Amino acid sequence: MKNIYIIGTGLIGGSLALDLKKLLPESVISGIDKSEAHLVEALELGVIDKKATYTDLHDADLVVLAIPVDVAVVELPKVLDAISDFSIVVDVGSTKQAICNVVADHPKRRNFLAMHPIAGTEFSGPKAAVLDLFQHKTNIICEVEKTAFKLQEQVINVFNKIGMRMRYMHPESHDKHIAYVSHLSHISAFMLGKTVIEKEKNERDIFDMAGSGFESTVRLAKSSPAMWTPIFEQNKTNVIDSLNDYIKNLTQFKELIEADDFESVFNEMKDTNYIKQILNGLQ
Amino acid sequence: MKNIYIIGTGLIGGSLALDLKKLLPESVISGIDKSEAHLVEALELGVIDKKATYTDLHDADLVVLAIPVDVAVVELPKVLDAISDFSIVVDVGSTKQAICNVVADHPKRRNFLAMHPIAGTEFSGPKAAVLDLFQHKTNIICEVEKTAFKLQEQVINVFNKIGMRMRYMHPESHDKHIAYVSHLSHISAFMLGKTVIEKEKNERDIFDMAGSGFESTVRLAKSSPAMWTPIFEQNKTNVIDSLNDYIKNLTQFKELIEADDFESVFNEMKDTNYIKQILNGLQ
Repeated sequence: MKNIYIIGTGLIGGSLALDLKKLLPESVISGIDKSEAHLVEALELGVIDKKATYTDLHDADLVVLAIPVDVAVVELPKVLDAISDFSIVVDVGSTKQAICNVVADHPKRRNFLAMHPIAGTEFSGPKAAVLDLFQHKTNIICEVEKTAFKLQEQVINVFNKIGMRMRYMHPESHDKHIAYVSHLSHISAFMLGKTVIEKEKNERDIFDMAGSGFESTVRLAKSSPAMWTPIFEQNKTNVIDSLNDYIKNLTQFKELIEADDFESVFNEMKDTNYIKQILNGLQ
Repeated sequence: MKNIYIIGTGLIGGSLALDLKKLLPESVISGIDKSEAHLVEALELGVIDKKATYTDLHDADLVVLAIPVDVAVVELPKVLDAISDFSIVVDVGSTKQAICNVVADHPKRRNFLAMHPIAGTEFSGPKAAVLDLFQHKTNIICEVEKTAFKLQEQVINVFNKIGMRMRYMHPESHDKHIAYVSHLSHISAFMLGKTVIEKEKNERDIFDMAGSGFESTVRLAKSSPAMWTPIFEQNKTNVIDSLNDYIKNLTQFKELIEADDFESVFNEMKDTNYIKQILNGLQ
């Protein structure tokens, strides 16, 4: 894989660029970004080797589409139009149903592999790019059977070598489960942040009282709204389901406190301590 | 301060014992705990120098009460009964109104200083004790004017030296604000854990999909129910207020998604990004 194109040189695209360059030092990593400022920054930081445009894509071996999911569904067909028969294009979006749908009948469908490398931080832009972000992380692959065998083999081999474990899943299942284990966490953090800011806006001193517990629970509320808004839009039904379940559980917990049923309050928390074992399984 | 007694040799009591021993190597740290197993463990780990009982407290220079808040309100009067006029007793509980009320008319009220050193981890027991847990953290002091001047000066000096900054607050204000910046974070994490476990209980594989975002948001759901249940009970009114505000915000966010008002969804998150500046202020 000599000619690698990264479309979207932010946190995920930039971090992948760094890992790919380390793995394949002979490759040329070209960046494409609608933000000229990001491209210049990515160049200066050594995240990419050079700037490019869609007209260069004809010589691409690998194209990584790492842009917000609402833009990805518009751009992916254009990217597939611009590549040769020997290129493989992957996307890295947090929703998988919409992107699979949009290219279902594209003549170059077999040159595309839908994936969701589950890694990230709450930061964004080329400055957020870090080496080894994907080490020991999970990469969800969707509709693997729709991608040309040789091309999927090549690219999965590359993602294996940057440290990821592959998991194969139907796009509909991906979107349902990721609503619970990822999208809901983000909304719970954003709304926790909002609730506390609203309450304490006139008393900045109060944040002196916030310990590391508040900090870790609210961390995701620093995330990029431009990235997350279209994710919630594309995964609307599942996100609403997860929010309904979450609000129901919070309301029930509140009602137990109101009813002075602290034995049940204890048991609710005791049962949820089981999350320890689950999180240990994640290590 | 030669004779130091730690009542409750768990995460907070044990960590304080380690810091106090480091600061005052000549002191003798005695542990009192209703769990003989914890006492033995604390001794073996070197968290305390020896075991003791309330009858030994007459020679105490400093007593630290680090037990669940429902037990603390029962034990504090007994501890004050057992000490001399030259002892200072501090508690470290996460609620302050109830403990201040219970000793308001105690003849040794001036030998007590109510505090809340805001530090901790999601672990518990003597094994969870770590050195320097309180470094650069906030210690909320309540009703400082009710404590004998010399005694408060001595003990605040010690807490300064283990790295804490003091903040003075009315117990009612403490309990109101801490509901938002701490207690609500714990409930939001517990209910997030519960929601995801309920949804995915038959599909353990799904937790492969959980990234570091889920892990940090749900971290507090590993906390001890025995410690947190009485905190929610003692701070019932404020905790319910904070939960009402949180549920209202989550419901409103869900309604924006349902109404396809993604401009407002974006703005809600954009406004909450302000938490970045607040968290930076915490460093």
